[in-house]
Amino acid sequence: MPQQHSRIITLLTDFGVQDAYTGIMKGVIAGINPHASVIDLCHAIPPQDVFRGAYLLYTSYSYFPKGTIHVAVIDPGVGSERNVICVECNDYLFLIPDNGLLSFILQEEEAKNIIRVTNTKFFLPKQSNTFHGRDIFAPVAAHLSLGILPAQLGENINQICKIDIPNPVFAKERRRINGTIISIDHFGNIITNITEKHLADLRTTAKDLIITIGTMKIRGLNKTYAEVKAGMPLALIGSAGFLEISLNQGNAQKYFKVKQGQKVCIDA
Amino acid sequence: MPQQHSRIITLLTDFGVQDAYTGIMKGVIAGINPHASVIDLCHAIPPQDVFRGAYLLYTSYSYFPKGTIHVAVIDPGVGSERNVICVECNDYLFLIPDNGLLSFILQEEEAKNIIRVTNTKFFLPKQSNTFHGRDIFAPVAAHLSLGILPAQLGENINQICKIDIPNPVFAKERRRINGTIISIDHFGNIITNITEKHLADLRTTAKDLIITIGTMKIRGLNKTYAEVKAGMPLALIGSAGFLEISLNQGNAQKYFKVKQGQKVCIDA
Amino acid sequence: MPQQHSRIITLLTDFGVQDAYTGIMKGVIAGINPHASVIDLCHAIPPQDVFRGAYLLYTSYSYFPKGTIHVAVIDPGVGSERNVICVECNDYLFLIPDNGLLSFILQEEEAKNIIRVTNTKFFLPKQSNTFHGRDIFAPVAAHLSLGILPAQLGENINQICKIDIPNPVFAKERRRINGTIISIDHFGNIITNITEKHLADLRTTAKDLIITIGTMKIRGLNKTYAEVKAGMPLALIGSAGFLEISLNQGNAQKYFKVKQGQKVCIDA
Repeated sequence: MPQQHSRIITLLTDFGVQDAYTGIMKGVIAGINPHASVIDLCHAIPPQDVFRGAYLLYTSYSYFPKGTIHVAVIDPGVGSERNVICVECNDYLFLIPDNGLLSFILQEEEAKNIIRVTNTKFFLPKQSNTFHGRDIFAPVAAHLSLGILPAQLGENINQICKIDIPNPVFAKERRRINGTIISIDHFGNIITNITEKHLADLRTTAKDLIITIGTMKIRGLNKTYAEVKAGMPLALIGSAGFLEISLNQGNAQKYFKVKQGQKVCIDA
Repeated sequence: MPQQHSRIITLLTDFGVQDAYTGIMKGVIAGINPHASVIDLCHAIPPQDVFRGAYLLYTSYSYFPKGTIHVAVIDPGVGSERNVICVECNDYLFLIPDNGLLSFILQEEEAKNIIRVTNTKFFLPKQSNTFHGRDIFAPVAAHLSLGILPAQLGENINQICKIDIPNPVFAKERRRINGTIISIDHFGNIITNITEKHLADLRTTAKDLIITIGTMKIRGLNKTYAEVKAGMPLALIGSAGFLEISLNQGNAQKYFKVKQGQKVCIDA
Repeated sequence: MPQQHSRIITLLTDFGVQDAYTGIMKGVIAGINPHASVIDLCHAIPPQDVFRGAYLLYTSYSYFPKGTIHVAVIDPGVGSERNVICVECNDYLFLIPDNGLLSFILQEEEAKNIIRVTNTKFFLPKQSNTFHGRDIFAPVAAHLSLGILPAQLGENINQICKIDIPNPVFAKERRRINGTIISIDHFGNIITNITEKHLADLRTTAKDLIITIGTMKIRGLNKTYAEVKAGMPLALIGSAGFLEISLNQGNAQKYFKVKQGQKVCIDA
C-alpha cells in the first residue's frame, strides 16, 4: 500500500465513445472527490474483450505514479454473481471485475491483497444491474482516492480469476520459438508475445533470425523503423518489450493480413 | 442557483474527434479559468442530431455535482438568429443553443430562469459565424465557472424551444403499451422510452409480458444479462431507467436489425 | 519566453484511440508534474500525416493561454536521426519532432529559439526506439511545465524543417485565385487555403465571386450556413479564417466528392 495517496484514477473500459458512459463515471467521481485526477487509458476495448483489456492494462499501469488507482471495466458478467475486486500490488491499486483483467500483470507482480468489494456504503445509493461502472466502480475508486483503505471495502479473498495468456514455446533444441500475436495496434504494428529475453535464449544471434508470419518471412531484427525503406517490413523489439512486426511508415496488418491469436515462428 | 460555484464544466457536442474543435474550446476555457475542470460527456453526437444530444444530456446531467455547468453544442443554426441560452434548473446550469436540447430534462426538471445570452463582454473579442463553441459557449461557461451570475449574461426570456419527445401510449385497456426506440448504444443495447412506471401501470406482472420488436418476441423481463445464455436476447430495465432489449454478451441491434425511432410493443 | 510558467500541456498525435498510448503519456507527465493540466488537441491525425498535424496545430495553438506547451507527436522518423526540438515563439513553446509540424505557424510566428533536445536527464531512464511520445516528449514536456528552461534541454540550432504549404496564386490580372483544399472536417466542411485577405485583393466584390469546385460552381459568399436552405451548398469565411465550402446541415465533402489537395478556383 503506498504511503501517500495518489489522486490519480485511470479508466479502461469497453464503453466506446458514442455514449456518455465514461463521462457519467467522471461525474460520479467528481461528486465524491473533486480533486481526483481522472486519466483515460482507453475506452475502445472491443465489447467484452477481457484479453485485450488485460494486455493494455499491462502495457500501461507502471507508467503512472505510485499509488495510482487503475479502474478497468470490461465486464461481461455485470449484474451477475461475479465479484468486484480491489487488488493491491506493490505500487498500485486495481479495481476490476474478477474476470482475468490482471492476467498479464500477475505474471510479473504479486497480488498482496485481494478484497471482494461488498461495502455498499461506498456505492451509489441505487445500483443498476447493467452499469456498475457508474454505480460501483466510479464511487469506490473516488473513495479510494480520498484515502479509504482497501480493507474497508470488504473481506479478503484468496483467489483471483485468470484467463489463458499464451506463452511462447521453444522447439528444435532452442533453435525455434513458436509465438502468438497478442495485439495489433492503431498503426497496424503486429505485437507478439516473444520478448527480448526469449530471443536471447535462442541458439543464434539476432541477425540470423528468420521470422515467419503467415506465408512470409523477415530476416533479422532491426532497431528502428527507419532502417528499412518506407513501405518495407521489419521486426524489432517494440515499446512494450515484445517482438513487433511493422512496416516503415506503413500498416503491417494490412500487408501481412494477420489477426490477433495467429502464430508467429522464429527460427535460428 | 447553487450556493457554491462548482468549477466543473461538461461538454457535449457533435464535433467528433477528427478535428481539434473540442481541444480549442478547452484552451479558451483554461485561458479564462485555469481552475475549471472540464469533463467530456460525449462528442460523437451525429452532426445536428438534437434529439440524441437531448437524450444523452438527460441520462447524464444528474450524476454530476450540484452546480455543474452543462454545455451542449449541437447547433445546426449556428450564426443564425437562434438564441444561445443559459437555463437554471434546481441544481444545474445549462448553456445551449435554444433548439430543444433540454426537451427530455424538462419533462422532470423546472427551468427556473432562462437567460438569452447576449452580453458580448463574456464572448471572445471576435466571433465567427460558424464556431460559437469556441467564441461564445466556451468563454461564457468559463466565466460562469468563475462565479458570474446567469443574470449578467443577458435578459430573461419566458420561452424555451422544445422538440417532440415520443411518449409511450397505452392501448387495449392498459393491456398494451406502444413504445419507441429512443437510443441504441455502443454495445447494441436497444433503449425504449418505456419506464418501470409504465410497466407497473400495465394490467399484468413482469413475467407475463410479451415484448414485440420487429418481427420477433421476447417473453418476460430479466434482471441481469447473465440470466440468459450468451448470445440470447432479453429485456430488462436499463441503467437510465428505461426498458432495454439486449443480447447477453452480444449486439441486440445487429440481432434485431432495428433503428432509433422504430416501435416496440408490449402486451400483457 | 513567458514570465510565468503555464502548467498546460496540449497533446496532438496520430496515436488514435484504440490503444493506450496517449493515456501512457499522461501517466508519465503526472508522475513528473502532478499539477500539469493536459489537454487533448486531437489524436486522430492519420498515421504519419505531418501536413494535417501542422494544419490542426495552426488552427488551435493561439486559443490557449500564453505559456502553453504544445506537444505534437506525428513522428514517422521516430528512432532515426531526426531531431526532437523545442521551439520558442512569442507566447508558446512547441515540442515536436523536427519534420515540419510548425510549417503553417511559422508563416505568422517567429521561431525565437530552436533547441535540439538531447539532455537525457529529462527523458525516461530507458528509451525505446518506437515510442518517443512516452520516453522523451512526455517527460520533457512535464519538466518544461515545472519551469525548466528550454536552454536546459540542449543546444540551440539555426534551422527548422519545413514542409510545402500550398499558397493561393492569383491569375488573370487579379481576377482569379487558384487555391487548394487544405482540410476537410468532421462535418464535411471543405476548407481552402484562401483567406479573406486574398478575396479582398481580388478585383471584385464578394457577391460577384464564382467559386469552382470540381465540376460545380457556387456564386457569392455567405455569412452563415442558415442563409441557404438545408442541404444547399454555400461558401463562407470559416472559423479558421479560410474560405470554406459547406452544405447547410449537410456534408459538403459527400456532395462535392472532393479530397484534400484538390484545387478550388475563384473568379471575379
